[in-house]
Amino acid sequence: MAEVAPEPSLLIIGGGGETVRRPLPDSLHVNGGDGTYSYTRNSYFQRLAANVVKGRIKGAITMKLDVEKLSSTSNTIYIADLGCAVGPNTFDAMQDVIHFIQQKYTLQCPQSNTTLQFLVLFNDQPSNDFNTLFTSLPRERPYYAAGVPGSFHRRLFPESSIHFVHCSYALHWLSKVPEELLDKNCGAWNKGRIHYTNAPNEVVQAYASQFAKDMEEFLCARAMEIVTGGMMTIIMPGLPNEMPYSQLAASLMYDFMASTFMDMVNEGLISEDEVDSFNLPIYTPSPAEMASVVEKNGHFSIEMLELTNPASLVDGQVDIKAWVIHVRAAMEGMFIKHFSPDIIDEMFDRLTKKLFMFTEQVESGYKDRTQLLVVLIRK
Amino acid sequence: MAEVAPEPSLLIIGGGGETVRRPLPDSLHVNGGDGTYSYTRNSYFQRLAANVVKGRIKGAITMKLDVEKLSSTSNTIYIADLGCAVGPNTFDAMQDVIHFIQQKYTLQCPQSNTTLQFLVLFNDQPSNDFNTLFTSLPRERPYYAAGVPGSFHRRLFPESSIHFVHCSYALHWLSKVPEELLDKNCGAWNKGRIHYTNAPNEVVQAYASQFAKDMEEFLCARAMEIVTGGMMTIIMPGLPNEMPYSQLAASLMYDFMASTFMDMVNEGLISEDEVDSFNLPIYTPSPAEMASVVEKNGHFSIEMLELTNPASLVDGQVDIKAWVIHVRAAMEGMFIKHFSPDIIDEMFDRLTKKLFMFTEQVESGYKDRTQLLVVLIRK
Repeated sequence: MAEVAPEPSLLIIGGGGETVRRPLPDSLHVNGGDGTYSYTRNSYFQRLAANVVKGRIKGAITMKLDVEKLSSTSNTIYIADLGCAVGPNTFDAMQDVIHFIQQKYTLQCPQSNTTLQFLVLFNDQPSNDFNTLFTSLPRERPYYAAGVPGSFHRRLFPESSIHFVHCSYALHWLSKVPEELLDKNCGAWNKGRIHYTNAPNEVVQAYASQFAKDMEEFLCARAMEIVTGGMMTIIMPGLPNEMPYSQLAASLMYDFMASTFMDMVNEGLISEDEVDSFNLPIYTPSPAEMASVVEKNGHFSIEMLELTNPASLVDGQVDIKAWVIHVRAAMEGMFIKHFSPDIIDEMFDRLTKKLFMFTEQVESGYKDRTQLLVVLIRK
Repeated sequence: MAEVAPEPSLLIIGGGGETVRRPLPDSLHVNGGDGTYSYTRNSYFQRLAANVVKGRIKGAITMKLDVEKLSSTSNTIYIADLGCAVGPNTFDAMQDVIHFIQQKYTLQCPQSNTTLQFLVLFNDQPSNDFNTLFTSLPRERPYYAAGVPGSFHRRLFPESSIHFVHCSYALHWLSKVPEELLDKNCGAWNKGRIHYTNAPNEVVQAYASQFAKDMEEFLCARAMEIVTGGMMTIIMPGLPNEMPYSQLAASLMYDFMASTFMDMVNEGLISEDEVDSFNLPIYTPSPAEMASVVEKNGHFSIEMLELTNPASLVDGQVDIKAWVIHVRAAMEGMFIKHFSPDIIDEMFDRLTKKLFMFTEQVESGYKDRTQLLVVLIRK
């Protein structure tokens, strides 16, 4: 459990590169279609960030995945991408993973005449835009494709049926907002905030508890589904051990969102109750916290668990406009459930202006080692 | 190959019960969503018709499917519904099949402590409304669910990965309109018609050849995917051996559609070229013809191949209004590709009126043994 409250980072990677992630709690989903605020068009920051760890994932597969053993009973490898959203990032990621697995197989079995086959199971919430995902699948692809609707906090696949699980920018989404945050008689009532930056310890603890509970459910479900020796790679926002979340550039986004909403309350555009009852169900763990939940679960060995710098591929200043659109593409669904569309347009307009006014503050936020990479093997 | 030209029957099952089926050629799909003309609301005739053969499918599974053997390497049974459309029929069908397989397992292994698991792979064209399918999945279901986008005339699944395939009211859809129909210099040019009822023999042969070619591709793909001993059940429109297609009540629908379009040509609402270049890519084989393509393919043994009466569950007169709406829910996508929406509204309005004027003729059409049931086992 984190003593310091890590926030659900909107990872900023300088020079117009930032990552946000995809809403996954029930009925939440990234923006579908391919319009102005669609995730399809506005998710390239996530890809840039994921690219940073591509080499490490290749290394993990090469060193730790026994492809010969996994393919000994059938020549089909079953791969799942959990929280795949609508592409195109998921297609690139799956292509890479398959390529690395094939290379490892050739390394292990240079004389084999067997051609490995792959089935990729694209998972996301039932409300995800699977129609867009399916119609944008690459025509030429080295795998059979299926979509699997459902929450990854529960079982999705039959027992011992999956060899490799990938989960990128999805696990920081909690299965729900911690209930205590809405209880006016509870110390964790999150009045005037929409998240846990600069919140009382009770609020932070409510978030941390929900994350630990969600992770335990996630790991138990995956332990049933992944075969012995199978691998799971997780990429998500992360916070350096002992660093206060408020130091992250990402935390500023939520602070400014909350203050923008409060401005709108003061102008009578929305009620205070509307803001008090809205909280973002997202959480950013530290490496220590993540290690602790995996060890407590006990079904997986930790092969890699480290913070990486999502900004390492790009240089320069934060592109505030692109950052806000990325956040909107990933998170708008959550706001739409709670506020009217007019209010959301207004809030994002004001937020952009506010962030421009405080460019220096945004730039000074910590944005180096804020991406967590976890590689697990099913014991 | 059929000597007599069987048409892609719109099976009429009296008393308001008729069946139509779902367009499956590339980019064609049933109407999504849940509006007035949606397939979700207008597909209960198909379900009534499929119910007629439910007992026979149960019998086939009980007598012919070796569930003990299929579950000997893993306790998960993989089931595919090809051309599943958007529900709810596919959910009922899958529930039934799973129930029958479980019963057979209990019969074969009364002492077993193993609980079978099921993964259902819902397949249809990528343009199918999978979003509606996924959000309407039964909450309580005895199976894991996945959607698989793609044409079933090609490979969909890894080698030897499927135990049971179901395909209901889908295989009469051809992969494309036979090309000869559009060639003005060819005897198979289908001027003034939209289908092969009362057409020259060359037109009929072009349709029959396309069906035979599609079936061969379908059977080859399934032969790769289905494990030895696995079962495939096919329900589709069928025509009694030696019966001219024009005797079927179903043939009237297409004749009236064509004449309605020609009325509109004469009134200058559409051009003659538009009608000449439009053909329905659907075909209704006879049992003899179906047996011939399966035997020629050689990978499957025929366990059952018979015509059933889709009308046996219902009595009374044809409900013309409901019939036309069912046809529209299943086929509108095909018209939308070719004609403007106004024209389609107008055509269906006129068609309904025309069918009411010729009720007696509609009633006199043959509608008894017009549903083909085929049960195959992978050799």
